[in-house]
Order: sequence, then C-alpha cells, then structure tokens
Amino acid sequence: MLTAEHLRHPALFAKIVTADQAAALIGDGMTVGVSGFTPSGYPKKVAQALARAVAAGRKCRINLWSGASVGPEIEEELAAVGAIARRAPYYAASNKSMRVAINSGDIRYTDLHLSHFAQQIDYGFLGPVDVAIVEAVAVTATGDLVLGPGVGNTPMLVQHAAQVIVEVNTAQPLELEGMHDIFVLPRPPRRREIPIYDTLDRIGGPYVACGLGRIAAIVESDVPDKVRNLEPPDDLGRKIAANLIDFLAHEQKRGRIPTAMLPLQSGVGSIANAVLAGLAASPFENLHMYSEILQDAVFALIEAGKITAASGCAFTPSPGVLERFRRDPGLYRRALVLRPLDISNHPEVIRRLGVIALNTPLEFDIYGHANSTHVMGTHMMNGIGGSGDYMRNGYLTIFTAESVARNGAISRVVPMVSHCDHTEHDAMVFVTEHGVADVRGLSPRERARVIIANCAHPDYRGPLLEYVRAAEQGGGHTPHDLNQAFAFHDRYNRTGTMKNGKGGPANG
Amino acid sequence: MLTAEHLRHPALFAKIVTADQAAALIGDGMTVGVSGFTPSGYPKKVAQALARAVAAGRKCRINLWSGASVGPEIEEELAAVGAIARRAPYYAASNKSMRVAINSGDIRYTDLHLSHFAQQIDYGFLGPVDVAIVEAVAVTATGDLVLGPGVGNTPMLVQHAAQVIVEVNTAQPLELEGMHDIFVLPRPPRRREIPIYDTLDRIGGPYVACGLGRIAAIVESDVPDKVRNLEPPDDLGRKIAANLIDFLAHEQKRGRIPTAMLPLQSGVGSIANAVLAGLAASPFENLHMYSEILQDAVFALIEAGKITAASGCAFTPSPGVLERFRRDPGLYRRALVLRPLDISNHPEVIRRLGVIALNTPLEFDIYGHANSTHVMGTHMMNGIGGSGDYMRNGYLTIFTAESVARNGAISRVVPMVSHCDHTEHDAMVFVTEHGVADVRGLSPRERARVIIANCAHPDYRGPLLEYVRAAEQGGGHTPHDLNQAFAFHDRYNRTGTMKNGKGGPANG
Repeated sequence: MLTAEHLRHPALFAKIVTADQAAALIGDGMTVGVSGFTPSGYPKKVAQALARAVAAGRKCRINLWSGASVGPEIEEELAAVGAIARRAPYYAASNKSMRVAINSGDIRYTDLHLSHFAQQIDYGFLGPVDVAIVEAVAVTATGDLVLGPGVGNTPMLVQHAAQVIVEVNTAQPLELEGMHDIFVLPRPPRRREIPIYDTLDRIGGPYVACGLGRIAAIVESDVPDKVRNLEPPDDLGRKIAANLIDFLAHEQKRGRIPTAMLPLQSGVGSIANAVLAGLAASPFENLHMYSEILQDAVFALIEAGKITAASGCAFTPSPGVLERFRRDPGLYRRALVLRPLDISNHPEVIRRLGVIALNTPLEFDIYGHANSTHVMGTHMMNGIGGSGDYMRNGYLTIFTAESVARNGAISRVVPMVSHCDHTEHDAMVFVTEHGVADVRGLSPRERARVIIANCAHPDYRGPLLEYVRAAEQGGGHTPHDLNQAFAFHDRYNRTGTMKNGKGGPANG
Repeated sequence: MLTAEHLRHPALFAKIVTADQAAALIGDGMTVGVSGFTPSGYPKKVAQALARAVAAGRKCRINLWSGASVGPEIEEELAAVGAIARRAPYYAASNKSMRVAINSGDIRYTDLHLSHFAQQIDYGFLGPVDVAIVEAVAVTATGDLVLGPGVGNTPMLVQHAAQVIVEVNTAQPLELEGMHDIFVLPRPPRRREIPIYDTLDRIGGPYVACGLGRIAAIVESDVPDKVRNLEPPDDLGRKIAANLIDFLAHEQKRGRIPTAMLPLQSGVGSIANAVLAGLAASPFENLHMYSEILQDAVFALIEAGKITAASGCAFTPSPGVLERFRRDPGLYRRALVLRPLDISNHPEVIRRLGVIALNTPLEFDIYGHANSTHVMGTHMMNGIGGSGDYMRNGYLTIFTAESVARNGAISRVVPMVSHCDHTEHDAMVFVTEHGVADVRGLSPRERARVIIANCAHPDYRGPLLEYVRAAEQGGGHTPHDLNQAFAFHDRYNRTGTMKNGKGGPANG
C-alpha cells in the first residue's frame, strides 16, 4: 500500500491508476523511455499490462529506450507479442523473443556506446520521447522521483518525456533515497566541466527532476527486480583473475600504476565477477570502483573493507545483494554513489580519474581488434554497452576472456574479428587463462606473436601462427590474407568447430 | 645568425654546436622525440646530420617519436639509411622509404590515437625518452622554448627527455611567440579538469618548460618547413563540400545544431580543404575551429572574417600561409591558439565544446565501419591520427569521401571494411559526391540501404545491394556472408578493379 512516505504530496494519490489504465496512455508508434539498467530499477507492471493488451488484439508497436537491457517483463513479454518496433541503446541475449526479433530484423535495434545515448536524445538526433515509465521508490512533494537501484538514462528520458508514468515499487528499499547523484549536462556550446575529481564526489541532487504536472499516472507495484545470484567463479575464471591481478601488481611494482592504485571499472558477467572475487584475496587495499554497473562481488568487497568507494549507474539487486544492503544500509550509503549513465561512462571523468578498464569481449584477433557483440560476425549477442567508453578512455585498458568457448570448438583468439567493436588502437592488454599479452608500444607483427603465444589456447596456436606467417608473405604493416581471414569462422559454420580435425591448421 | 633575440641568456651561445656534433649525442637504440606536427615546426639539420653519419657507416637505429609525420629530412632521409627501428604515433604515406619499411615490417610502427600518445609516455608505458630534438624560434632566459608553428607532443617529450637538442630556426617568424598555449596535464589520480570552455581559452603559458641545464646543444638552422601549397578543390571535392554544407544548414534549421553554430574539426587533405573552401561561400558566420591541424583554407577563412577563432596543435606553414601570416601577424595572433596535441584532441574538451567532426577515411562499409589506414586491409597508408579522437567524441560526427578511387576501380563503399579503425558506433553521417547518409538511430539493415543509396557510386550500388540481400538470407542483426565480405577487395587484388567487368555484381 502506498503511503505518505511514498507519495509526498496529497495530489499524487489522485493519480493512482491500474497498470492497464496507465498502459492505455501508450499509443502506437510512440517512443517510450523506461527507467532501470539491467534488471535493476525498471518498471514491470505497465509493461506487462501493455503486453497483455497487445496480446488481446490492441495494435501498438513502440520504440523502446532504456539504460541497458532490463527485465523480462519488458525485454521478453513485450517482444513476444510484437509490441516493439525499435530498441536502443542496449540489448542482452538472455531474453529469447528480443534476441530472435533483433536478429531477424523485426526489431530495429541501434547499438550505441552507452555514454552517447543520453546526449543524442538531448541533441534531438533521435526524435522526441512521448512517455517515460519510471520505477521509483517514492515521489517527493514537488513531484520529483526517488529512484531504485538503477539510474541508467532516467534523468534525460524524464527531462524529455511529454508524459511520465511512475511505478512506485514498495519492494525496493526506501533506504536507497540519498544514494543517487543526479546531474543532467546542459547542451553545448556553453557548458562547464563535470566536476568529479574523486570516486564519490557528488555534483547533483538526490532526485530526478520531474514535477507534479508531468506525472500522468502512478501505478503501485511490489514486484522485485528479476535478478539471480551469480554462480561462484569456476577454475578458468579464477586463473584469468590470477593472471590479471599478477599483472596489475607487476605494473604497480614497476611504477606504472600509482601506489595508491587507480579506480577500477569492471564489465559484467562471470569473468568480471571472478576478477572481483580475486581482488578479495589480492594485496590491494582501499580500492575504488568507477564503473558502469556494480555487480554482486562489489558488495562483498565493500563488506570486507577491500573496496572503500564505488560509483556506478546501477547496482545489481540480486537476492544476495539486497540481503547485504538491508543488513547494513549505512555501509553502502557511505561507500556507493549512483549516477546517470552518461556520467558513469563519460570520457571526461574516466580519463581524468585514470580508470583501469576491465572488459570481456566475445573474441579478439591477433592484432588486437575485439568483437563484443556479434556471434560469427552476424548474430547480435549483447550490445557494446559501456565497453567502448572505458576501453577508449581508461588509463590502462584490459580485455579478459577465456581462450576458447564451446569446449574448445571456438577459439576466442582469431585471425580477424568477424565484427569490430574495439580497434587495435584501444586495448593495451589481453588476458586469458593462459597468460597476459601486453601489446603497448608494439607493432602489429609483434602483437600477433605475443597474443598468440600468451593468450591463445595451445590447440589454436599452431594454426594462428601459420596464418600470420602465410599472410606475411603478402607484406604489409598488418599482414592478412583476406581470403583466409575468416577461415576459422567459416569452418565453424560448416563443421561446428574451428579445428580442422587433423591437427593441422584451421586455415587449411 | 643567432642573436640575443633568439638566445636570451648568454650561456646559451656556448651551447651552439654543428649539426654533426649534435647528432653525435644520439646513440644506437635511443628513443628520440622530435618536435613538430606534419611538416610544421620539426627539426631538420640534426636529423640530416644523423642520416649522413649512418650512411657513412655509423651504427645507429633509433626509436622515433613525434606529434605526427613530419618532414622528409626525418621521414625520408633517416628511414632511407635504416636509422629507424621503431616509429610512433603517426605516419603518412608521402615518404617512400618510411612507407616501404613500415609495410615490410623493418620499421616497427605503432599506430595510436593521437590524444593517447603523450599520456602513454607520461604513464611510463613506452619507456624513457633519451633525447628530444626541438625546433624553436627562440630560447628564453630561463631556457624555455618558443616553438614554431607545430606544437604536437613537444611539451611532453621535453618533460621526459634526458637531454634536449634545440634547433633554433631563423626562417620561422618570431611573431609566433605568444601564440602557443602550453599546458601539461598531471598524472592521475589527483587531477583537475582541463579548463577550456571556448575555442580560444588559454590555460597554460607561451613556452615549453625545459630549463638551461637540460639543453645539451643548440644548432642554428634556417631551413624552411617542407610544405607545398594545396591544390585548389576539384569538382568532386566541391560537390562533397556542397552536400555537407547543405546538410549542416538543414540540421541547423531543424534545431539540431545551435544557431550560433558549433566549433568544427576538419581532417587533412584535399577533401577537407574543399570543405573549408566551401564554407567561405556558405551562410555560416563567426565560425570556430577546434581542430588538430589548421590547413591553408583556415587562413583564408580567417582573413575573410568567416572564421573568428581557431585552435589546433599546429598550422601548415605552406608558402601561401606564411605569406598571409607575415602580412598581418596580428590578425592570426588574435584568432589562433596553438596547443599540445593531447589538448587539441582531448575527449574532455571535444565533447564539452560540442565539436562537429569532419574526417575522410579510405573506405567505409555498408554498416558504418570505417578504415582510415590500410589499403586493402594490409598496407599502411596513413596512421589513424586524430580521427578517432574526434569521431568518437564529437557532437555530430561526419565522414566525407569520394565514392570511388582510381577512376572507379575502387569503391570506397564496401561490404565490409578490410581494416577497422572506426566502428559502426562512432560515425553518424557519411557524405560523398552522391549524397548524404544520415544513419543516426538506424539499425544495421537500414543503414546499409541508406549508405548504398545515398553514398555509393551508381556502378557499385547494384553489387552492394545484392551483397546485403544475399547476406540477409543468413539472418542476423548485421547480415554478412563472411565468404563474400571481401569479394570486392579480392577482385581488386586479382584483376585491378572491384568491378566484375560484366555489369554484374562484384561479389559474383
């Protein structure tokens, strides 16, 4: 039941409607922005109501904008009934209907650097926002919004929305209030710096500016975010983490990382979680995270006193994380700040602070290009997300990955990436369970040797070396045989493995 | 003859040596940083002396660092005698010996985003700088350096150099003094913003800090920078410029560019020069440039009152430009500021100011990836330079190119770029003589249609469409047939043209 703690102006109670009534505000062809970032702080009930209406025959296809991929109520249920025409700026493979529709072209998806999306909305490049649906913990007396655990692009979406629907979710802890630092950049040409000089610096206010007048409807919700606990790291993840932490310690010893350490950014997924878990046993102390999303392990590290400051645009409210949070909200309120996505990922701040960037691509090539998004160059797996923001602007930029996938049928180190999201100019270091390839200052021919020797799986080292040696016969700064560059991928498409089955080269 | 105007402390005169004596300070295996950016403000005499010594039998192979490619005394003469082991961060094809050695792998070249190089030196990632050779207009009483028309990475190279050799060039106008704004960023984690909020804001001082003690030798020079006047724009260049300017005017009318206009960045070369020339006849007034290098046309536009403020890390001192400068130095001293390369190209400033980025790639593909560097994917033509800094961080990011090269034998629009320097996530707009492809907010399948229809040469539209239609049979967010993705390039390598000679598809 919503109380005066949730709705802090009497007029707000008059705006309470059912989810079905709120969903009726959303018209065919509209652009709808939703709050949240990953399954964290996204609206559930109105999306489900819209999906029900469409399933029952209502014609409504929307353009869906968000922070990142959110929960299945949106990504799966709306997609399954064909209610999504366009999607931006991110998508993750976990929801089947969305995945199928994006890869068939039925949903027109635009994959953007996450730091770019809010500004492209603000500049008017992508058209107007008709409705924003925002999950909030509470609405203030002036009609401003107290967000849940995921900020994403909510401030910019609300700023531009003609109408705002608020889902007030009593399942989210009210102690989240005050953890957000909401700051919306003005447009150029006359604008100032983003005055963040340390991880926890606050530059805005705790609420998303909205105002009573623009709130078209309020829907009560008590549906938790759909997040599962992450699996504990496996052997391979632990090996990658150990290689990475050795490397960082070595860099620090050589004076190339300051003794006070630098803020870390970490992508999402099992390897990222293993790396964070590895930090718990590392010699590093008083760590800072200046990152996009703060996963489960960050909470464990804060509790252990290893991480003393963390900034992100969301945290992942898994059952384990929520339990920690409810046990000691004061600890996390002191150590965490939640920012808009375009601030958490902003090149200005990432470069100024000297963030060490850790991300995991699908594949990378012998010259250092990386593919974060497309399986075999064609099928979208996950969007690029913030990896480009951090890998371009970080102090030290590191890709971590397992050397192979599918029990060795896929080498993650290939002659040429089948889709390029990060160029050779961006990543400095590659880490797999086999070792570390530090390619700073190397030429492409040197990079190829180091990446093959230190990162590739032993089964693929021979074929990769054979590829580069043959390509060198043709000369060039970056030797390639364009007829064989995708031989690994072609073999996989034809035979189900990149290996040629004879112990010989894949590029035979 | 060097006078007290050039050497402003008596002790400096005692440091005058011959170029041969100065070159003897450079030992085998050393890392040598040189001033300048393009053939602008680079040292000539010591490089030539070193080349002579090596030609005469002295063993000396150096690692050569600079701002960008500089003049033939360095790029050609040193390369021709095998005196260069490594090269960073940029190279341009105009010098044959360097080109041949980089493409054979004899010179190990590292191609970097130009905004990254100074910081990688500063972070210690690339090793120490043994000697810096700096062309200066004068040396102050405290041993600090008044640079010529190209700043590049000189401040950081001097900061890290164990020894500094100064070539004082009496052929450079002394009126350059005061035009530089030299600012060296501290290292993270404790650093502040770069306080540039308008094109001409000054944040540093006029001189490169060096100090009398570190100046190991002074060499007198009167050798002009080796720059030719650019050819006037041709028909094709003018068509591209007209398409671009129409597009900018349209965007401004739609409110997507502020009425006051935004600062422009422009790459180098004939198309860039045509675009700038086109601005002279455009409705735009009071233009600002926040760019890397300021080419000839910028001076004409300043004189015409069209450009009122220009910031760069160098200007191109062609005979025509120098004539204009000498005629009215006051005008250019008011309208121009010369900054270090890592400031002219810094993401923080580019994004804050809202720079409109205009660059020219070698080729781009139907999905929006671009290749700025490698001919047919293997042979280095020019380094990536600053294009990535601006195309990633600009307000509006635009690639301009001719639709074909070599009389139509090469299509600059291809199914898949043979080398990727800029991903689909970066460029928003593509302009050729045939039209404008605005791909903001589009999905890959949509982008392919728009790019083919609006930018490709009519001879290649059919084959490109046929490629994408066939690829779509395989499905996927970004349809590709990896076996045919380089069919255009392969045909060119085999037959000398990307056309199949039968009017049919190139990918047949």
